[in-house]
Amino acid sequence: MTTEDSFKKPIKHANVRKDMTVSELTKEYDRCAFGAGRLAKAIHIYREMLEDDVTRFFGLAGAMIPAGMRQIVVDMIKRGDIGVLVTTGANLVHDMIEAFGGEHCHGESDADDLELKNARIDRIYDVFLADQHFTTFEKCFDAIVDDILNAHPETQFTICDFLKETGIRIDDRNSILRAAADHAVPVFCPAIADSSIGLQSWIFGYKRDLCVDAFKDIRQITDICHKAERAGALFVGGGVPKNFIMQSMLLVPKGFDFAIQLTMDSPETGGLSGATLDEAKSWGKVGEHAKTVTVYSDATITLPILVAATI
Amino acid sequence: MTTEDSFKKPIKHANVRKDMTVSELTKEYDRCAFGAGRLAKAIHIYREMLEDDVTRFFGLAGAMIPAGMRQIVVDMIKRGDIGVLVTTGANLVHDMIEAFGGEHCHGESDADDLELKNARIDRIYDVFLADQHFTTFEKCFDAIVDDILNAHPETQFTICDFLKETGIRIDDRNSILRAAADHAVPVFCPAIADSSIGLQSWIFGYKRDLCVDAFKDIRQITDICHKAERAGALFVGGGVPKNFIMQSMLLVPKGFDFAIQLTMDSPETGGLSGATLDEAKSWGKVGEHAKTVTVYSDATITLPILVAATI
Amino acid sequence: MTTEDSFKKPIKHANVRKDMTVSELTKEYDRCAFGAGRLAKAIHIYREMLEDDVTRFFGLAGAMIPAGMRQIVVDMIKRGDIGVLVTTGANLVHDMIEAFGGEHCHGESDADDLELKNARIDRIYDVFLADQHFTTFEKCFDAIVDDILNAHPETQFTICDFLKETGIRIDDRNSILRAAADHAVPVFCPAIADSSIGLQSWIFGYKRDLCVDAFKDIRQITDICHKAERAGALFVGGGVPKNFIMQSMLLVPKGFDFAIQLTMDSPETGGLSGATLDEAKSWGKVGEHAKTVTVYSDATITLPILVAATI
Amino acid sequence: MTTEDSFKKPIKHANVRKDMTVSELTKEYDRCAFGAGRLAKAIHIYREMLEDDVTRFFGLAGAMIPAGMRQIVVDMIKRGDIGVLVTTGANLVHDMIEAFGGEHCHGESDADDLELKNARIDRIYDVFLADQHFTTFEKCFDAIVDDILNAHPETQFTICDFLKETGIRIDDRNSILRAAADHAVPVFCPAIADSSIGLQSWIFGYKRDLCVDAFKDIRQITDICHKAERAGALFVGGGVPKNFIMQSMLLVPKGFDFAIQLTMDSPETGGLSGATLDEAKSWGKVGEHAKTVTVYSDATITLPILVAATI
Repeated sequence: MTTEDSFKKPIKHANVRKDMTVSELTKEYDRCAFGAGRLAKAIHIYREMLEDDVTRFFGLAGAMIPAGMRQIVVDMIKRGDIGVLVTTGANLVHDMIEAFGGEHCHGESDADDLELKNARIDRIYDVFLADQHFTTFEKCFDAIVDDILNAHPETQFTICDFLKETGIRIDDRNSILRAAADHAVPVFCPAIADSSIGLQSWIFGYKRDLCVDAFKDIRQITDICHKAERAGALFVGGGVPKNFIMQSMLLVPKGFDFAIQLTMDSPETGGLSGATLDEAKSWGKVGEHAKTVTVYSDATITLPILVAATI
Repeated sequence: MTTEDSFKKPIKHANVRKDMTVSELTKEYDRCAFGAGRLAKAIHIYREMLEDDVTRFFGLAGAMIPAGMRQIVVDMIKRGDIGVLVTTGANLVHDMIEAFGGEHCHGESDADDLELKNARIDRIYDVFLADQHFTTFEKCFDAIVDDILNAHPETQFTICDFLKETGIRIDDRNSILRAAADHAVPVFCPAIADSSIGLQSWIFGYKRDLCVDAFKDIRQITDICHKAERAGALFVGGGVPKNFIMQSMLLVPKGFDFAIQLTMDSPETGGLSGATLDEAKSWGKVGEHAKTVTVYSDATITLPILVAATI
Repeated sequence: MTTEDSFKKPIKHANVRKDMTVSELTKEYDRCAFGAGRLAKAIHIYREMLEDDVTRFFGLAGAMIPAGMRQIVVDMIKRGDIGVLVTTGANLVHDMIEAFGGEHCHGESDADDLELKNARIDRIYDVFLADQHFTTFEKCFDAIVDDILNAHPETQFTICDFLKETGIRIDDRNSILRAAADHAVPVFCPAIADSSIGLQSWIFGYKRDLCVDAFKDIRQITDICHKAERAGALFVGGGVPKNFIMQSMLLVPKGFDFAIQLTMDSPETGGLSGATLDEAKSWGKVGEHAKTVTVYSDATITLPILVAATI
Repeated sequence: MTTEDSFKKPIKHANVRKDMTVSELTKEYDRCAFGAGRLAKAIHIYREMLEDDVTRFFGLAGAMIPAGMRQIVVDMIKRGDIGVLVTTGANLVHDMIEAFGGEHCHGESDADDLELKNARIDRIYDVFLADQHFTTFEKCFDAIVDDILNAHPETQFTICDFLKETGIRIDDRNSILRAAADHAVPVFCPAIADSSIGLQSWIFGYKRDLCVDAFKDIRQITDICHKAERAGALFVGGGVPKNFIMQSMLLVPKGFDFAIQLTMDSPETGGLSGATLDEAKSWGKVGEHAKTVTVYSDATITLPILVAATI
């Protein structure tokens, strides 16, 4: 950017109209600065990322499934918008909870947590979840793991392969894990033990030996990086999904060509979650000429806009 | 809220579609939690706030005019959606800069500020503003103040009346100050000296005596509060606009019936900007049965949605 | 900074010991990065700012008096560490409430605000304040204003002069306003009406005419800026105090030589409160070669450290 | 808390003195609210947590080793203050980088990242790290893994055991991993693949088969929870370390008796990192009568204070 160029594009101010479409709204954001301008820029980058020769990585952190983003993610997978999914164990567990008939409910972020505990309700900010759904999850997940081991005795799985085998066995085409399996989208979850999947595997281990390797799917994701003609990353939140996607590019010469962050984490804490996409350029994770933007705003608001504007 | 009720409303997950309208998008937010759910709630409350018997206070902090929100605010005034406007000196100055022919431009938040300084460009996050527009502002504002004093010699103005007199003399119907004057919307700006209006008044003071009282428009805003059948407040950001609107209700028995905050300030700092709307209930600023919500997300994104969905 | 230089200073890691002093602790911070490193840098800058030829501006925003920072600020004034104080009306009101015998109490940030309201307790995050102290404030402040008007009938005050007259009449040498008056430290409060001082002045106005000018102390602060050999600014929080101090340097060629921010506001919202000190360089508010640092951390923790380490 | 009680403890205001000790400073924090008051409360809780019958879990997220917290953590281990350590792969890698002779350096958060890339320097906020140290890490870590496999051929390790074997072989008693091994402190790192350890294990895998199980150390941490008479958790940041420690209590009836968070993550994003410790009570992760506090402030500042005040 040169200073001269910057004065060729005045801020025109957003206009809103009754019955305008989301696409029209994002054109108004284009006329703005701050978060609106950045979201508009994210949409431009994302549109380019959706081109055929781009391998698309999607990092999904935060409690996005409990918060209501499940269908959007599933539809992204079904449309082919996600090439590689990296997420947290919690998001996968909450996806399965719904697949197994459970539901998350609208609650209050200032609820009395001891009352909730007595009512056997777990709280995730302003989402309530009846504890009984974990019981169902445990039963159903246990049956799935049994079935996996019956089909593949004495196999040592990578986490990615284990999740694929799990996905195949989920009887809900609106499950993220199932949709990913259906559409051959690899799902990575490095911290898989850090979730009820981990707890359940421990209980399961008392009856049968389940063997999932902590490291071996690094090869799978690195291979994808190597083969990618162009690579783009969309990050919802930071955490392990962001770091794992970023590091997968460390051994590839060129880095990501596109990167978009939808997050509320700010850089000032020094942690990786809030780190700027420029910082990633020093490491070579993001390419020198990459198109990047971070939108500092609630992702449950911005992700639906990003997707709706680019379908 | 009872725990039982909360389980009557499951989270249904947002769906997005090509060519969907903003109103349809916000119905999808209704199915979600976190920021999306809160924005949907804000829209329900705001719709009720737009009913005839509600006096609507609008607190506008943050650099919202440079960021591209000017037209939305002007149109809100023109539609009668704002009964009382409380804002910062900076927002009024940047409104006038545009009224006097200046423009804000798209810049970069990581620009080299010394280069900018040498190029005589002022930066507001990712907005650039040529310093020359302040020179124009000073000349035009000086002429307006001269004209005000010619018309009202030896008058001691309240800040609110001074801004009305200023607004009348701005030759741009898309100016916030002009639109407010045209539609009899009082504009309060307690920290008016904390802006280029203040600096310019100091320079002006060397030639003529301009007398604006710091306190006397408290009566004007308190009268409006007393007369309000029902009262609602929409806050963009915190700061003085939020505090001034809140305190105007301190001397009125019932407090606000509706309150919506669109902000990135969190409560954990202890400051008033990020304070919850519940905290305001302890003071009686917000009524016991008031409908309230805070949306923690970038207001340049959420304000256009809120307005587009409720026109 | 050149890249080569940066490799001359390795991070040595903090060591902590039983009975170490705060000064020793800050030497350990010097060995660290992130917030600790920035706080250490702030201490180095502040030590230089305390030299004789530096005019020191102190911007105090946030509810710092209720939170327990009153004595520290008063002692800074008494030691001559503050040359100019710019603060909010709220901080001055809470200072006076204590001067008039009231007290703030330890409360809980998740208290039930309706219960508090019924008990006539006002909440400021985790601070509780009995409403009755406002009644005392109103009575005492009313008497002071009466006395001011008796001594100076028909005077039009600047806000700064009005606060000085108020300070003189406060019978508590541990009051900020009183200490400032005792030590000839001018106190600016552009948004003075945005506080119980404003509300009370309105009630007072029904019996006598108090005339305080909104603009005229701009001259006072600008004069101080012009006369300063070197100028330094310490900001606790952002808001009007930060903006007002910053803009006071707009008409002076060289800008601040030193600037320190202790804040929880991040730049990403685009507002002035969280704006970087570099942004201020583009405007010329902060000098080209100024020494600056922002410490993103709770100021009730960092201000005591900064002061204790530099006495 | 009852409202009456709260009025028995007035805020006395902090006093700071030359040469005061950190312990004395924290007694002054006790007189304050907001962050200072919360830090003082954390110190009281932590002092109680240090009693003999408490099993102490330490969750260490964020780039705390690059930032200069390595020695403090090592000394905590040596003193017996940490019973169980849960951290990120990145923190372990940066610990080993220093053990193998590398160093982190003071840099600048606004450095030009492309310049850094060309100079082969990796940036972590305001920390610089020469890329060559990763080469050394790879070589040394490879030798360690070789040695582990020589000693334990055909073994399937848990992550915890693998880290113990690694720690034993690190020739630096100031390494976290070594100190933990020396003092029999188990180290858990569920997302171990999400770090250069993961990348290196992939390269290593081309020559020998390293087999580390993703799930099996769940049993180890759960056993510790079951055996704990009383349990306390100290969290620096959120992420996987926080979640993993919290979930380890899910299968134990009583939950944590003490919990302290030092973080900059706020609850408003809905994610687990910023979730309140009350939310954890609804799940039963934190006990009904637990003593808990969250300090929203930079942990590189607060952790040294917490430790120094309680040695």
